[in-house]
Amino acid sequence: MARTIPLSPLARELPALTTIRGVRLGAAEAGIRYRGRTDLVMAEFVEGTSVAGVFTRSKCPGAPVDWCRAALPGGRARALVVNAGNANVFTGRAGVETTQATAAGAARLAQCPAAEVFLASTGVIGEVLPAEKITDALPALHASLSDDGWEAAARGIMTTDTFPKAAVREVALGGTTVRLQGIAKGSGMIAPDMATMLCFVATDAAVPSGTLQTLLSASVDRTFNRTTVDSDTSTSDMVLLFATGQAGNAPVDGPEDEALAPFAEALESLLRDLALLVVRDGEGATKMMEIRVSGAVDDQSAGRVAMAIANSPLVKTAIAGEDANWGRIVMAVGKCGEPANRDTLSVGIGGTWIARDGTVVEGYDETPVVAHMKGQDIEIDVDLGLGNGRNVAWSCDLTHGYIDINGSYRS
Amino acid sequence: MARTIPLSPLARELPALTTIRGVRLGAAEAGIRYRGRTDLVMAEFVEGTSVAGVFTRSKCPGAPVDWCRAALPGGRARALVVNAGNANVFTGRAGVETTQATAAGAARLAQCPAAEVFLASTGVIGEVLPAEKITDALPALHASLSDDGWEAAARGIMTTDTFPKAAVREVALGGTTVRLQGIAKGSGMIAPDMATMLCFVATDAAVPSGTLQTLLSASVDRTFNRTTVDSDTSTSDMVLLFATGQAGNAPVDGPEDEALAPFAEALESLLRDLALLVVRDGEGATKMMEIRVSGAVDDQSAGRVAMAIANSPLVKTAIAGEDANWGRIVMAVGKCGEPANRDTLSVGIGGTWIARDGTVVEGYDETPVVAHMKGQDIEIDVDLGLGNGRNVAWSCDLTHGYIDINGSYRS
Repeated sequence: MARTIPLSPLARELPALTTIRGVRLGAAEAGIRYRGRTDLVMAEFVEGTSVAGVFTRSKCPGAPVDWCRAALPGGRARALVVNAGNANVFTGRAGVETTQATAAGAARLAQCPAAEVFLASTGVIGEVLPAEKITDALPALHASLSDDGWEAAARGIMTTDTFPKAAVREVALGGTTVRLQGIAKGSGMIAPDMATMLCFVATDAAVPSGTLQTLLSASVDRTFNRTTVDSDTSTSDMVLLFATGQAGNAPVDGPEDEALAPFAEALESLLRDLALLVVRDGEGATKMMEIRVSGAVDDQSAGRVAMAIANSPLVKTAIAGEDANWGRIVMAVGKCGEPANRDTLSVGIGGTWIARDGTVVEGYDETPVVAHMKGQDIEIDVDLGLGNGRNVAWSCDLTHGYIDINGSYRS
Repeated sequence: MARTIPLSPLARELPALTTIRGVRLGAAEAGIRYRGRTDLVMAEFVEGTSVAGVFTRSKCPGAPVDWCRAALPGGRARALVVNAGNANVFTGRAGVETTQATAAGAARLAQCPAAEVFLASTGVIGEVLPAEKITDALPALHASLSDDGWEAAARGIMTTDTFPKAAVREVALGGTTVRLQGIAKGSGMIAPDMATMLCFVATDAAVPSGTLQTLLSASVDRTFNRTTVDSDTSTSDMVLLFATGQAGNAPVDGPEDEALAPFAEALESLLRDLALLVVRDGEGATKMMEIRVSGAVDDQSAGRVAMAIANSPLVKTAIAGEDANWGRIVMAVGKCGEPANRDTLSVGIGGTWIARDGTVVEGYDETPVVAHMKGQDIEIDVDLGLGNGRNVAWSCDLTHGYIDINGSYRS
């Protein structure tokens, strides 16, 4: 793939990365599809690591998603293998065999059961992923794993991403300081319905897998599942959270344990960071949108309205054109089928209410809104005036860049 | 609006238009928004004309949609007034008053109750539509109405359309030859959910309004409601069907009357023509897509799968790029939430089955598919392998042209 996609104007530098006790990782060139860059990532976790995961709701998931779903109930993880360039989706029996061979190869190196190996693949759909390219590269990759391989891993899982994505948190858990660190990839085919593309988070906290799963599922619903780039849900979406327990915190007592509150908050905040980094790298994106909906009949309804605005091509192209075309926001509210009443609907952009209760605000002055539209971070407020439901969605604009990236031969 | 949008490469010439006994129509320049072109259309129907209509399901419909919904139960129509350039949507009390004043003005001229005047507006949302621009222009327009004003009317209702759209049918109804003729406009904000944008059809057949409504609703479900350009449902969608009764056919006996079968077929065929003309004028379109889904659990499910493919930005950009990227079709099937099974799924393009039962066809030769992708009319087949449900969707590709048209200031 010789195409060069320019760096997203919304890109963020990698934060200063740390290490997570009990995690060693790295990346290698397996030559699966790309040339001259890493495309295979491995992480090894210390014995006793618990795991939680959420996956795409696609009815046509990739073979690695099936593999992880089957492995998850065990609640234990010792290794993770990720490749970029081939999603191992819609590859029939060959795809299943590739996951088995990859897991077996990693299990031999990590000296663990294959069911404690987690797998992810991202890239083209419908082409067979040759297992031996991975299994041949794994021994040298395994020998090179280190505490500080996080940046290499963040780069090794990229596909059409224009920058690597990572986030770090440090938080107290029952008197002990624990860390969380995560990486993500994703740029197109982003409309997570459970999780988005690939995101891997590790913590040195000791949290049993059931509790970890509860925290992860709730956080993903409020972060990754509130973002969209192009309304297209990937077949390979996956967020995995590994807890190595090396921080030595006191045992936690289920997801309701009050000592977990700061940890849960830090996890959600970290996942929000990573989710927004994916939107910031949305294919062709030049502007971010935060859409805040209030006054809905309930939070779920508010979420659907926010997502209808976030996914509307006409809203997204208006944002790209720096056009405060609030009529298109009204259209998107109207089309999504959720309870709405034209005559109680209010719309604002950049903190200025443009329309209230079904008509334009008397003496509406477009000046501050026009100035806001020239910025990179666009805020849209919608008040449905029906109830107390509220929710948010994050999206990006739709530009020529998206067409360039996806309208050329076989991205 | 000085922008010039190039003629769609998928454009079709107007067919040879006829007259419909009992219908006189024409267009005028009311100067509502555009300069140097007609933007106001009026039609007058002979006494005794019955009417049927379907409207947008948007929760934020325009004032003219409300007006027509209220007028429809009367079942009678004597006049139609349509303006382009301003949709009279989200205009509060002022919008309601504009519909009242417009209907009153037309009713005076046609010497009928205001409730027998039908109204439609299309254009920008959220700006007040000044009634006097319309009522001032109506008397001269009314004086100029003629049997052969159809082409003028087809042009007068255009907004971002690049060509006028019309279709004609002649068919036997109980031994009498009757005619149907219709015009439509639409190019963007096309994801009809009941009807799409504006479409007006007249026939000289004598069909009572209840029967007419049954026929129209069924036909629209199978034609306009199976098309999409950009997944954005307009606030102003409307299809109206007027039957003047001037053909003098024998009275029909409800929608089940066997004598109506050829008429119903002709109506559906005419509406399909008009719906596909709207897709052919899809903003930025360079290729048409026909997506045929079979093997679904039922027809409705097949329809949702077809529409998910039709609306996928990644499928649409692949078509634009002439890329037979069938993996994106699999993705779209998987994302839409309808019953699907990866291992019974088959995908074909241009009559060639590429993948069968969850994996690529042994020895798949891309050559005929690549040739098909270079054409203007792209055929996609999906067999879900689950049941007997089947359905179709029509869409167009997503290109730089769409961004050009919608990403510039206030279209």
